[in-house]
Amino acid sequence: MDNRNRARMLISCPDQAGIVATVSQFLYEHGANIVQSDQYTMDPEGGMFFMRIEFDLAHLSELHPKLEQDFAVIADKFQMKWNIHEVSKKKRLAIFVSKEDHCLVELLWQWQAGDLDADIAMVVSNHNDMREYVEQFGIPYHHIPVTKDSKEEAERQQLAVVDGQVDVIILARYMQIISPKFLEHYANRIINIHHSFLPAFVGGKPYAQAYNRGVKIIGATAHYVTEELDGGPIIEQDVQRVSHRDEVDELKRIGRTIERVVLARAVHWHIEDRILVHQNKTVVFN
Amino acid sequence: MDNRNRARMLISCPDQAGIVATVSQFLYEHGANIVQSDQYTMDPEGGMFFMRIEFDLAHLSELHPKLEQDFAVIADKFQMKWNIHEVSKKKRLAIFVSKEDHCLVELLWQWQAGDLDADIAMVVSNHNDMREYVEQFGIPYHHIPVTKDSKEEAERQQLAVVDGQVDVIILARYMQIISPKFLEHYANRIINIHHSFLPAFVGGKPYAQAYNRGVKIIGATAHYVTEELDGGPIIEQDVQRVSHRDEVDELKRIGRTIERVVLARAVHWHIEDRILVHQNKTVVFN
Amino acid sequence: MDNRNRARMLISCPDQAGIVATVSQFLYEHGANIVQSDQYTMDPEGGMFFMRIEFDLAHLSELHPKLEQDFAVIADKFQMKWNIHEVSKKKRLAIFVSKEDHCLVELLWQWQAGDLDADIAMVVSNHNDMREYVEQFGIPYHHIPVTKDSKEEAERQQLAVVDGQVDVIILARYMQIISPKFLEHYANRIINIHHSFLPAFVGGKPYAQAYNRGVKIIGATAHYVTEELDGGPIIEQDVQRVSHRDEVDELKRIGRTIERVVLARAVHWHIEDRILVHQNKTVVFN
Amino acid sequence: MDNRNRARMLISCPDQAGIVATVSQFLYEHGANIVQSDQYTMDPEGGMFFMRIEFDLAHLSELHPKLEQDFAVIADKFQMKWNIHEVSKKKRLAIFVSKEDHCLVELLWQWQAGDLDADIAMVVSNHNDMREYVEQFGIPYHHIPVTKDSKEEAERQQLAVVDGQVDVIILARYMQIISPKFLEHYANRIINIHHSFLPAFVGGKPYAQAYNRGVKIIGATAHYVTEELDGGPIIEQDVQRVSHRDEVDELKRIGRTIERVVLARAVHWHIEDRILVHQNKTVVFN
Repeated sequence: MDNRNRARMLISCPDQAGIVATVSQFLYEHGANIVQSDQYTMDPEGGMFFMRIEFDLAHLSELHPKLEQDFAVIADKFQMKWNIHEVSKKKRLAIFVSKEDHCLVELLWQWQAGDLDADIAMVVSNHNDMREYVEQFGIPYHHIPVTKDSKEEAERQQLAVVDGQVDVIILARYMQIISPKFLEHYANRIINIHHSFLPAFVGGKPYAQAYNRGVKIIGATAHYVTEELDGGPIIEQDVQRVSHRDEVDELKRIGRTIERVVLARAVHWHIEDRILVHQNKTVVFN
Repeated sequence: MDNRNRARMLISCPDQAGIVATVSQFLYEHGANIVQSDQYTMDPEGGMFFMRIEFDLAHLSELHPKLEQDFAVIADKFQMKWNIHEVSKKKRLAIFVSKEDHCLVELLWQWQAGDLDADIAMVVSNHNDMREYVEQFGIPYHHIPVTKDSKEEAERQQLAVVDGQVDVIILARYMQIISPKFLEHYANRIINIHHSFLPAFVGGKPYAQAYNRGVKIIGATAHYVTEELDGGPIIEQDVQRVSHRDEVDELKRIGRTIERVVLARAVHWHIEDRILVHQNKTVVFN
Repeated sequence: MDNRNRARMLISCPDQAGIVATVSQFLYEHGANIVQSDQYTMDPEGGMFFMRIEFDLAHLSELHPKLEQDFAVIADKFQMKWNIHEVSKKKRLAIFVSKEDHCLVELLWQWQAGDLDADIAMVVSNHNDMREYVEQFGIPYHHIPVTKDSKEEAERQQLAVVDGQVDVIILARYMQIISPKFLEHYANRIINIHHSFLPAFVGGKPYAQAYNRGVKIIGATAHYVTEELDGGPIIEQDVQRVSHRDEVDELKRIGRTIERVVLARAVHWHIEDRILVHQNKTVVFN
Repeated sequence: MDNRNRARMLISCPDQAGIVATVSQFLYEHGANIVQSDQYTMDPEGGMFFMRIEFDLAHLSELHPKLEQDFAVIADKFQMKWNIHEVSKKKRLAIFVSKEDHCLVELLWQWQAGDLDADIAMVVSNHNDMREYVEQFGIPYHHIPVTKDSKEEAERQQLAVVDGQVDVIILARYMQIISPKFLEHYANRIINIHHSFLPAFVGGKPYAQAYNRGVKIIGATAHYVTEELDGGPIIEQDVQRVSHRDEVDELKRIGRTIERVVLARAVHWHIEDRILVHQNKTVVFN
C-alpha cells in the first residue's frame, strides 16, 4: 500500500465542547480526508479527552510543517498535547535483550516477514550470545556488559548508541533495571515485557511465584517502564490456562509464547500510534 | 446517571471527504457536546463510511425534531442512512422462546438487576411452560402454539401482539423458523442465538454435529435473522474449550453458558445502538 | 442415568511403586469396574501421589461398608488419606450470600435446570432481601444478621443451622470474614468466589483496584477459604478482556458473569469429588 | 532430566472389567513404577477403552523386548492395540512446507531452544526459498518441485527421502494435497495445520471465506490427514477475536500466530504419545 500521504494525529486535552468539530473542520479545510478516528472522554463533565485520527492528505510531507504551524493555534486554545506522525516515516526501534531470546526472535521474525512496520535500528545486550543471529539480518549488535559496579557507565554507553538513532526501546526480556536518569530520555517510549499477569507477581521469578501460589491461569504484561518496578502504564496483557501438572519449567515454556504475543502486540500498537498515556494508564485505540 | 439529554446517532453512507467535519460542526452549532464517536471506513478509496456518535444536548427531547429536520439536509447531500436515538427512550423488547429457558432467564435476570437498559414488553412462546416464571416479573406472556398447519396463522397472531409495541425481537432459543413475510416487518431487528460457532454446524442439533466431528472448541453465535437459515449478519460469537471426555449432554451444558453470554452481549449492543449492518456483515462499535 | 452403583474414590499419599496396581487389583477383586481414573505424582522421586477413581460396583450401597473396611488395610500400608463417595448420595450445600445475588441466582438456576447434582439444603444471609426469591424454590432461608458486635454470636447461629445438615458451604458473594473457629468445622469445604484474578487485588473493592491499576484483563477466583484472607487454595480462575473505556461499574458488570461461571465450575468440581488439596494448592482432575 | 528409564504405553481396546488392574499389576510385577496414567472409556457399557501410562523401569532398553513379549499375552486377551515407546528414543520429524514460513520457523525455534523433544530429520519443500534458512541449522533440505503433471513422481521422491528416516510428517503450511497412496504409509502420522476453525471454511482461502462471512472470531486447526480434505481427526484448535476492522490481510497476520501455536501444540502432543485416534476422533491425554 502506498502510504506516503497517510498521517496519524494523537491528541489529549481537557474535555470541552467543540473539540471534534474544530479538529475535523481544520483537517477538512486543509484538504485532509479522515480515514479513521477514535476518541474517548474519561468523564463527560470536566474529564480528559483523547483522540486519534488517521487521515490522508495529498503532498503530505510538503504540507506537514504548515499543518503543524496552523494547528498550533488550535492546540493552544484547547491546551492540547498532540503530535502528527507521517506513517511512511518508520519508527526506529532498539531491542534490548539479555539471555532469553524468544521475544527478540519473534520481533525479528515479524519484521523480516514484513509484519512490523518499523526499522530495527540495533540490538543492545549485556551478553554477546546473540550477536551472530542478529547480525545475519544486517542489524547492528551492541554488546554492553553490565555489572553492579559498571551499571552507570553501561547506561552511558547505551545512551550514546541510541541517542538520536532510536525512537522507542523494547526491553525484550532485558533483565536489568533501568535507572530514572535513563528513563528521562525515553519517557513513555520504553516498553517492557513482564512475565506475569501484573500486578500479580511483581519482581523476580514470577513463574516460580505463580507455581507456589497455585494459580490456574498465567499471563504476561507489556507496559511502559517507569521508576516504579513493574508499575508503569499497562499496554497489553494476555493469559493462558495451566493446571496442577505444569511445574515451573512448563509454566516458563507456556509463558514464553504469551510473552512473545503480548510484547509484539504492544510494539505494533506503539509504532502505529495507537497508545496515549495519561497518569499511570494507557488509552489504546485498537 | 441522568441521561435525559444523551443521544446516539448512527450514520452509514458512501465515504467522501468532509463527513466527520460536517457532522461534528453541525452538532457543535446545535449546542451538542460529543461524548464518544467511532467511525470506520471500509476502504478509503470509494468504500462505505460508518459512524456512531454519542452526544449530550441540553433540552434534547424538545430540540430533537428540529435537530432531525436540520440534519436531513446534510444527510441528503451525503446520501446517508441515519437515525438519532434518545438514550432515555428505552427500546421495547419481545423475547421469543420455546422450551430451553437459559437465555430467557439470563435476560430477565440482567433486566431485573438493572443491567439491561430496555423494556421487556412481552415474552412470546409456542409453549406455555414459562408463563408463571415470566408473569411474576409483571411481564405479559403470550402463548401462541405453532404446528405445521397453523404456522401462518401463528405468525399473524405474533405480529398482532408485537406490532407497534416492540422495537426488537430476541429469539432466545426459539426453535421455529421465521417466515420471510414476518422478517420484512423487523429487518435487522430480530436477533437469534445459534448454538454453534457459525458457519460450522448450521441447522439442527449442532452439539451432536460438533460431537461427531470431534471439535476441541465449541461456540455460539448471535446474528440478525435473514431468509437464509443461520446465514444472517453475525453480531457476536464466543467459544469454550472442550475435550474428548465431553459427550453431547456435556457439550449442551457448557454451551448453555456460552449461548447466554453471547446473546446477552448482542442484545446489549443492539439496544445501545452499537451495531450497523452492511450487506451481510455487522460493524460493531463496542 | 442410573448411578446407584457408581462411586468415586479419592486418594493422596506419599508416592511409591505399586500403588496403582494395588488399588486397581483391590477394586477388581471386589467386583468393581473402573470407569475413569486420574492420577498425578508431584515428583516421581519421593513426592506426593494423588488419585481419583470412578468405578461401578453392583450392590454398591450394600457392599460399601465392607469395601471401606477391606481397603483400610491397604490405606494403612501406603499412609493414604482417602474416601469413597457414592455418587447417588448427593452432597448438601449451604449457600451464604450478602446483597449481590448473581452467584446465588446462577447456582439456583443450574440446580433447578438439573445441572447441579447436589441438594441445596439452605441459604444463609446477613440480609433478608432474597428470602422470597429463595423460598419459592422450597429452600429454607436463614436470616442471620451480622454486626461488629454480634459476629461471634452470628457464627454460633450459623453453625447451629448447618451442623449435620450441610457438607459444603458456598460463599456466593458473602461479604463477611469467616473466623478461624468456624473454618475448623469445614476445612477445605468452604468455597469462596473472590472478584479478582488472585493474587492480584486481594481484599476489598478489587474492581476499583483493577480500574486504578489500568489492567487490560479482569478475572475472578474460586478458592477454599483459609485463615489467610483471599489466600486459600485456588480451585478455578477465569478472565475477560476489558479496555480503557470500562469504568468501575462496567468492570463490575463484566465481572459478575465471570464470577458466576467460575464459582459454578468450582462447585461442580467439588461435588463431583474432582479436587484434592495439598498444602496450599489444589489438584483438580477435570 | 535423565529419561533413559522412562517409557510411555498407549492402549486402546474394547472396555471390560479388569483392564486397569491387569495392566498395572503387570507393570508392577515387572518392576516398573507408574508415574502418570490417564484413561478414558467412551461408554462404560460396551464402549472403547483408552489408556496412556508413563512409567519408569530400571534398565529399560535392556528389558524392553522382554516386556513387549510378556505383554503380548495380555494384549491378546483384551484385543488391545498398543505400543510401548522409550522416551529417550526421539521421534524423527519431516517438516513439509511451501512458501509461508511461520509454522516452520516456530518449530525450528522451539527445537533449537530445546523445547521440542524430537529430531528434525529433514525439511521437504516444493520450493527452494527456505533452503539457506534451514541448512544453517544443519538440517537437510529436500527441494522436490510439484506440478500438476509431476505430482505422482514428486510423491515417489518424497517417499524415497522419508522412508525409514521419519516417524511423523508435519505439514507446516504445505499447500499440496497428499494422495491416498502416500497417506497409507503414514496413517495417523501426518499432521496438518489448517488455517480455519474447522469444519468452518474447509478448502482454499479460509481467511477470505472468514472475512466474507463476517465472523467475529477466527481460528486454526491441527488434524491428522485423511483422504477427506480437511476432514481428518482434529488434534487441537484455537481461536482469536477479530473485528470488522480486520480485513483479509490482517486476518492472515492474526491467523499466523494462531496457526503456529496450534500446530506446535499438536506436534508436542504427538511426540509425547498423548494422542489416540479412534474412528475420526482423537483422545488427547494432556
